[in-house]
Amino acid sequence: MSRLATLKEHGQSFWLDSLSRQMLEDGSLERRIRDQGLTGITSNPAIFAKTMGKSPHYDAPLAAALEQAAGAEGLYEALAVADVREACDLLLPVYHSSDGADGFVSLEVSPHIAYDPLATIRQARALWDEVGRPNLFIKVPGTRPGRHAVEVLLYEGINVNITLLFGVDAYRETLEAYMKAMQRRREHGRDLHSVASVASLFLSRIDVAVDRELRHRLGPDVDERIRAKARPLLGHTAIANARLAYAVLRETLASERWQALAEEGARPQRLVWASTGTKDPSYSDVHYIEPLIGPHTVSTMPEATAAAFEDHGQVAATLPADPDEATRVMDHLEQLAIDLDAVTYQLVDEGVQKFIDPYDKLLARLEERRTAAARARQASVLPGVAARLRAEVIRMTTAAGSGHPTSCLSCAELVAALFFDEMRWDPQAPEARDMDRFVLSKGHAAPILWAALKEAGAIDADLLTLRQIDSELQGHPTPAIPWVPAATGSLGQGLSVANGLALADRLDGIPARIFCLLGDGECSEGSVWEAAQFAADNGLDRVVAIVDANGLEQSGEAPYGHDTSVVAGRFRAFGWQALEVDGHDLGDLLVALERTRDGGPTAIVARTEKGKGVSFLEGAEGWHGKALDEAERDRALAEITAPEIGVRVTPRRVGGGGEPSGDAPPVPIAVDYAEGETVATRSAFGDALKKLGAQRNDLVVLDGDVKGSTKTATFEEAWPERFLEAQIAEQNMVGVALGLAASGKRPCVATFAAFLTRAYDFIRMAAHSRPPHLLICGSHAGVSIGQDGPSQMGLEDIAMMRALDGAAVLYPCDAVSAERLTEAALDHPGIVYLRTTRGKTPVIYAASETFSIGGSKTLAESPQDRLTLVAAGITVHTALEAHRRLRAQGLSTRVIDAYSVEPLDVETLQRAARETEGLLVIEDHNRHGGLGEAVAAQVGRLGRVFHLGVAGEPRSGTPEELLERHRLSATEIAREALAVAA
Amino acid sequence: MSRLATLKEHGQSFWLDSLSRQMLEDGSLERRIRDQGLTGITSNPAIFAKTMGKSPHYDAPLAAALEQAAGAEGLYEALAVADVREACDLLLPVYHSSDGADGFVSLEVSPHIAYDPLATIRQARALWDEVGRPNLFIKVPGTRPGRHAVEVLLYEGINVNITLLFGVDAYRETLEAYMKAMQRRREHGRDLHSVASVASLFLSRIDVAVDRELRHRLGPDVDERIRAKARPLLGHTAIANARLAYAVLRETLASERWQALAEEGARPQRLVWASTGTKDPSYSDVHYIEPLIGPHTVSTMPEATAAAFEDHGQVAATLPADPDEATRVMDHLEQLAIDLDAVTYQLVDEGVQKFIDPYDKLLARLEERRTAAARARQASVLPGVAARLRAEVIRMTTAAGSGHPTSCLSCAELVAALFFDEMRWDPQAPEARDMDRFVLSKGHAAPILWAALKEAGAIDADLLTLRQIDSELQGHPTPAIPWVPAATGSLGQGLSVANGLALADRLDGIPARIFCLLGDGECSEGSVWEAAQFAADNGLDRVVAIVDANGLEQSGEAPYGHDTSVVAGRFRAFGWQALEVDGHDLGDLLVALERTRDGGPTAIVARTEKGKGVSFLEGAEGWHGKALDEAERDRALAEITAPEIGVRVTPRRVGGGGEPSGDAPPVPIAVDYAEGETVATRSAFGDALKKLGAQRNDLVVLDGDVKGSTKTATFEEAWPERFLEAQIAEQNMVGVALGLAASGKRPCVATFAAFLTRAYDFIRMAAHSRPPHLLICGSHAGVSIGQDGPSQMGLEDIAMMRALDGAAVLYPCDAVSAERLTEAALDHPGIVYLRTTRGKTPVIYAASETFSIGGSKTLAESPQDRLTLVAAGITVHTALEAHRRLRAQGLSTRVIDAYSVEPLDVETLQRAARETEGLLVIEDHNRHGGLGEAVAAQVGRLGRVFHLGVAGEPRSGTPEELLERHRLSATEIAREALAVAA
Repeated sequence: MSRLATLKEHGQSFWLDSLSRQMLEDGSLERRIRDQGLTGITSNPAIFAKTMGKSPHYDAPLAAALEQAAGAEGLYEALAVADVREACDLLLPVYHSSDGADGFVSLEVSPHIAYDPLATIRQARALWDEVGRPNLFIKVPGTRPGRHAVEVLLYEGINVNITLLFGVDAYRETLEAYMKAMQRRREHGRDLHSVASVASLFLSRIDVAVDRELRHRLGPDVDERIRAKARPLLGHTAIANARLAYAVLRETLASERWQALAEEGARPQRLVWASTGTKDPSYSDVHYIEPLIGPHTVSTMPEATAAAFEDHGQVAATLPADPDEATRVMDHLEQLAIDLDAVTYQLVDEGVQKFIDPYDKLLARLEERRTAAARARQASVLPGVAARLRAEVIRMTTAAGSGHPTSCLSCAELVAALFFDEMRWDPQAPEARDMDRFVLSKGHAAPILWAALKEAGAIDADLLTLRQIDSELQGHPTPAIPWVPAATGSLGQGLSVANGLALADRLDGIPARIFCLLGDGECSEGSVWEAAQFAADNGLDRVVAIVDANGLEQSGEAPYGHDTSVVAGRFRAFGWQALEVDGHDLGDLLVALERTRDGGPTAIVARTEKGKGVSFLEGAEGWHGKALDEAERDRALAEITAPEIGVRVTPRRVGGGGEPSGDAPPVPIAVDYAEGETVATRSAFGDALKKLGAQRNDLVVLDGDVKGSTKTATFEEAWPERFLEAQIAEQNMVGVALGLAASGKRPCVATFAAFLTRAYDFIRMAAHSRPPHLLICGSHAGVSIGQDGPSQMGLEDIAMMRALDGAAVLYPCDAVSAERLTEAALDHPGIVYLRTTRGKTPVIYAASETFSIGGSKTLAESPQDRLTLVAAGITVHTALEAHRRLRAQGLSTRVIDAYSVEPLDVETLQRAARETEGLLVIEDHNRHGGLGEAVAAQVGRLGRVFHLGVAGEPRSGTPEELLERHRLSATEIAREALAVAA
Repeated sequence: MSRLATLKEHGQSFWLDSLSRQMLEDGSLERRIRDQGLTGITSNPAIFAKTMGKSPHYDAPLAAALEQAAGAEGLYEALAVADVREACDLLLPVYHSSDGADGFVSLEVSPHIAYDPLATIRQARALWDEVGRPNLFIKVPGTRPGRHAVEVLLYEGINVNITLLFGVDAYRETLEAYMKAMQRRREHGRDLHSVASVASLFLSRIDVAVDRELRHRLGPDVDERIRAKARPLLGHTAIANARLAYAVLRETLASERWQALAEEGARPQRLVWASTGTKDPSYSDVHYIEPLIGPHTVSTMPEATAAAFEDHGQVAATLPADPDEATRVMDHLEQLAIDLDAVTYQLVDEGVQKFIDPYDKLLARLEERRTAAARARQASVLPGVAARLRAEVIRMTTAAGSGHPTSCLSCAELVAALFFDEMRWDPQAPEARDMDRFVLSKGHAAPILWAALKEAGAIDADLLTLRQIDSELQGHPTPAIPWVPAATGSLGQGLSVANGLALADRLDGIPARIFCLLGDGECSEGSVWEAAQFAADNGLDRVVAIVDANGLEQSGEAPYGHDTSVVAGRFRAFGWQALEVDGHDLGDLLVALERTRDGGPTAIVARTEKGKGVSFLEGAEGWHGKALDEAERDRALAEITAPEIGVRVTPRRVGGGGEPSGDAPPVPIAVDYAEGETVATRSAFGDALKKLGAQRNDLVVLDGDVKGSTKTATFEEAWPERFLEAQIAEQNMVGVALGLAASGKRPCVATFAAFLTRAYDFIRMAAHSRPPHLLICGSHAGVSIGQDGPSQMGLEDIAMMRALDGAAVLYPCDAVSAERLTEAALDHPGIVYLRTTRGKTPVIYAASETFSIGGSKTLAESPQDRLTLVAAGITVHTALEAHRRLRAQGLSTRVIDAYSVEPLDVETLQRAARETEGLLVIEDHNRHGGLGEAVAAQVGRLGRVFHLGVAGEPRSGTPEELLERHRLSATEIAREALAVAA
């Protein structure tokens, strides 16, 4: 005979305190009803949380619920209602056979509304209707507001289990609410017999709280008399409290008021002993069962307690008629200054919170499962896209006979997830700004970019023309395809470009994300970390770096193989959010991409396999940058199951951006210098920028921590919002400028001419990117900077810039020309390099003088000219002085200010070559690659070209000493001129 | 009347279990002896650890001990012995008045020797002699080996307190050891009365352990019958155990064997109740005192327990004559399968460990205090050095009228600590390799480097000539000063150079550290992180980066101000050990520098103030790169208290390195190609490197993850130990090579010519560094690479390299010239740039042909030549083909292979200019800055120079298509030649 079943003989019902789908499915609930006399079961959010979020038993109901329910809360209710209804049906025979006295299932309202009576009433009604069973209890927390709701619900005929009761006073009010509800029903002629209610009093939690207080009074510093009083109370409060509550029930049932209701069929509101599991292991495991057996009670047990009682519980009527002993316990607590009211009050709050936490976690988990399910649906089509891209890449590169197929295969899922799911873009609108953007920093994966664009309908080109001379589809990305903001292929540059695109978006209020795909080997480039620092420090939270960590580079294993934690850790150290994912798991990938919506900057380091999807390429060395032959291609394609039909991209825009800024057409800036005044050209450049900033909203200036020297600080003072401190990181500075230019800004970067060498690869790639506008200013040119010495002298800058196809090179000699050339530079298409000088130079031009790119100024000319002095920048002044001295010595020289070094004013120089006996070019630059060679190459066939430029190692010294030593002074020019003329 | 004092009436002594210096100093020990009848005190390492390492009470004794004691262990003993001796003296009256029965102080041997009887005996003897007091107990742990030592010591007449006794059996053996020792003493006629011993039985720890076992048996799943048995045992084991031990004592004292000894004056070995503090707060705070009162016992209490007993302890004889109840407890434990023997055995081990941990911590702490004290002594002279450096910097920069004084002041302590303490170097031996090295990456702090070198006697120069044109003391460091390995001043380069120095040291077996001083703003340069990655990935554990985080840069606050954690965190993310210190606290700094000796790489991020030491400069903006005027200088100097006399550097060497490698003079490598055979010049370069590696031990090759393309992989296969994979980080690769070159290696770096632009600033600074040898190879030059497109084409490399003073530029056209020029390049001083071609080209030279830098080869020549075709590399072949076609058309052309682009073979070209009607230069390079302009500039005055070079944006295509499109094909050359000739 079951011990549990015999509790009934003493008027106590045995309930379980945890409903789960499993016990419905495995028949254990049914068995307990049959064998152990189980007559009820309760549930609560914490209990559901234990299984609903994780157990496979919920997979099927969840899948069904996902079809209908909206949101996580709806899902929870749908699942909970289904379980409860099923349990109700199992207990319905008990309910009927007991004439509605027993056989109940409890379902709790959301813990979030525990203090909101109206919301409680609304939700209780809804759940009651939803379940639609007579043996349902709606569980309502016994907070003060909750108790108010209880009365309303009971009056309406909804069965209520008032839960989270701790104190006797709260219990008393609950009982009172029931009585009032019954009285009102009677007054309104409603049936009393059909309404049931229980009040759930919590036990072990009281002891946990009170024992904690008691233990404070057992501390080593406490008076032994107090300790002696406290010691025997351990573990005895809850039972005393319950017995006192029971005394209240007994008293009420004996009252006339109750008798009157009972006569009309009202049922007693039974007391449920809840929280009956022993928490303190030094107490018996049936500590909260054995002493509380008696009529009109329910003992609701956790599984373990029920099992313990079934094993060795003593069944006897143990609820004393007289609660004197219980009262004594309470007195002692009071003597020990333990305030049970305060304890129970706090326990109610904690109890609510104990439901809220798991409930919220459950909702979050359900939301995840909901999202994952939605994702799974989407992910079910994306593998097909990835497969199609893989197949195209292999076909393309084999047709081309070269390329990097394996580097494309590793990122097929990444590209599919971006272009066909996460990115908001419109394949029909390549020029639109208000879309998410993509930068392929690992440019050698160009084939998969072309394939994705083609698949999406964004380009028309025949993929099989890859790498053919007249195809748009080049070996590495170039802006010949309008979806490519900047040429890539030299690694480590894309993230800086992405920064620039993001900055432009921020300036224009466009909430687009910029996705940049990098390789893992590429992360060895320091420029990646310059870009990472810039993005984090400037709060570019919509930049997303995705690292395709395929673990292999040309030379073998990438520095950290497949250990994504190293690169992820570095991004974190640079202030980024970093996620590590399986780059071939589309589910993982989509969830990670979704997380980038919350802001970052975010790095997704994706563990992938190079050559993924083709058995003989996967993770294999020796395949970097190698196309398959036709037989290999066919073997590979046979392994790839690509669906016939692809997926359409839903055109989306991110909004923002408003109307184009619509600047008024620029008017010439006001230039105001007196001739002879000495002003550094760098200062004039700064002043011009400031004035141009007023006319051009698209002018954005970037500094490499030398704004006080280059004088971009002048611009910053006036237009701080369009000034960016790029710190001592010239590569990223140029890359950011290129990104800005790609978004239609008119960027200007400035640093020492010498330090532009740092960014030469970026400038080179900028030249290949053919930006609409990009002004690069190099200050502190030449040996004339003086004492700082060779490390700070720009001596290679003209050679460097001239070697870039399409770049203009300007070199003003005074403030007027500096301002005018700055102005002209901003209107000139493509890259313009402006070279400025550290020292002050006299103004030689009238403020009204105009300067065109490709022009020059002849500063002295006469029919007697025997030689032409060709100079630019600082040497214009030494040449003019030499001209004066030579004139005094009877040698007439023409002087040309060749301020436009590229394009050169060939016509004027050729005329000089014809009209004089030779040209002497003087330049403060290495004697190779500068103005001298430019003149020699372009004018040399018409006349003799002589040349003074910097040779030998310069050193510190005064500007004058250095000009003298490197033969750029007036004295040396004159000496050379006399020698040439001789 | 004191309750504690009345214990005596029942034959029990009251001891304290914790001796501290404080109770000696504040008189509380004396008071307790007087008022509470205290008759003994014990000590142990854990107790000393609580105060000795931290308490200010130990400052004075420690200072005294530091003068004599060696090592931390010696310090500990000195301090402990002093305390114990003082306590002995306070208790000596008790000892005497009790006739040597009481009044003892216990001092414990090192816990590390608890299982080593011989060491225990040695140490006990030493401590006994050291303290030199009759009322001393040497405390020896009651492990089995310890008990053996006890017998020996007691026999020798040393008083022993056997401690860490838990089990009755162990106690019994202890008692037996005592008896045996006394018997032996008697046998040898030694006095028995003068020897004392106690056995310390531990109490509460037993209950903690046994209660834990009992609670397992009170778990919710345990059978209630077992629980019922376990519950009453809680907290009762220790007392039962003690009472059983006491029964053993009582029995022994009653034995005849003892009586015989007692008659000769032997004293009973008393039982000490130890570990008497209540651990479980639910037990009474005198739980372990009250029930164990009786004759021949000592109760040794912690302060709190003594206070509790004094307050409410019940004094009564409580040790029962009959231990039956105790035996019952033991029986019940056995029935519950609790093995008390196992428990006590484990407690002994744990007890020893519980002493070892705090003892070791204490020793570490004492070692720190010892080091700190030593450091403090050293630190007391270094501030004077720093002050002298500061004063010099200010004088120097004011005299120069420019410079960066504030950037020097921030690192004065750093530089002082390095050069005058931590670095092992010899100021008289600038050329020596086996010394620690210093790289000033923040080159603008050059003045303080010059000042430090001068202060150390390493240079002679007059500091006040700073920045003067003929002074060695330039504005930024250059190797004009032999202590400077490489020119710095362009930021972010020094750490790569340091890597190179460290690599050279590793190759040569020199255990030197390389210290590199960086600025904080400088850490924005990506190249710093390339270097960081390289150092960590290559295990360069002797590289030390010191970041002078002065928080300010030119443009205001540095990116992270004074928050050193950001940069430190980044170094850690890059695999470094990183320390954060106060860069002006010499003590801190020296300790941090010392930690770098254990290996790293290590970054020390030092929080400093720019302008430190001068009130109006400290942390002030607007002072970057600005010298003080004379009045400001004088104000500043008035604030700096610099001692008259500096500190001498002790010359030190690190050893290692052995003899110079003494390579045999190289012989020409064997070159073996058949004319007409097609071989890529890049392959020939790789083959030559491999052969040269056999001859030159100093040849070290670095790759940027393109070894399969540049063909340095060929070298790697033969000489893997001299091949370094520098990953995709070209800047660091060049910097490392420069460092290697500075240490006398012959480095070769190779990557695509296009990607050398990435490292242009590093190459520029390498040129300013004038390295003995540095070979740079750029492969994949020109449009002839074909399908990969413009990002991979080296089109600017010749311009870039020619613009560097002193760099040679070589461009072979076939395998023979490629091998020979590689060979020549390694012998050529300074930087040599070698340009190779991707595609295979026919061998046109005999294997025996020789090639000299500055030479050329005339491939076709006749008196009828009307034009000269000047080509190099790939265009030599198209020019030869054009020559053939033109000859067929009746136009005779001379063909020159100008393989030495710089220096150019001007003589041969000039002759051609004179002998033909013009020179047509054809080059696969941007038309600016390359061979064409070189020829025009240097030969143009003697004849007409025409030119075909790359213009316009290249794209993907076949090499042939691209050569055609950019007018470098034979067809186009012939067309141009005909046009020129017309």
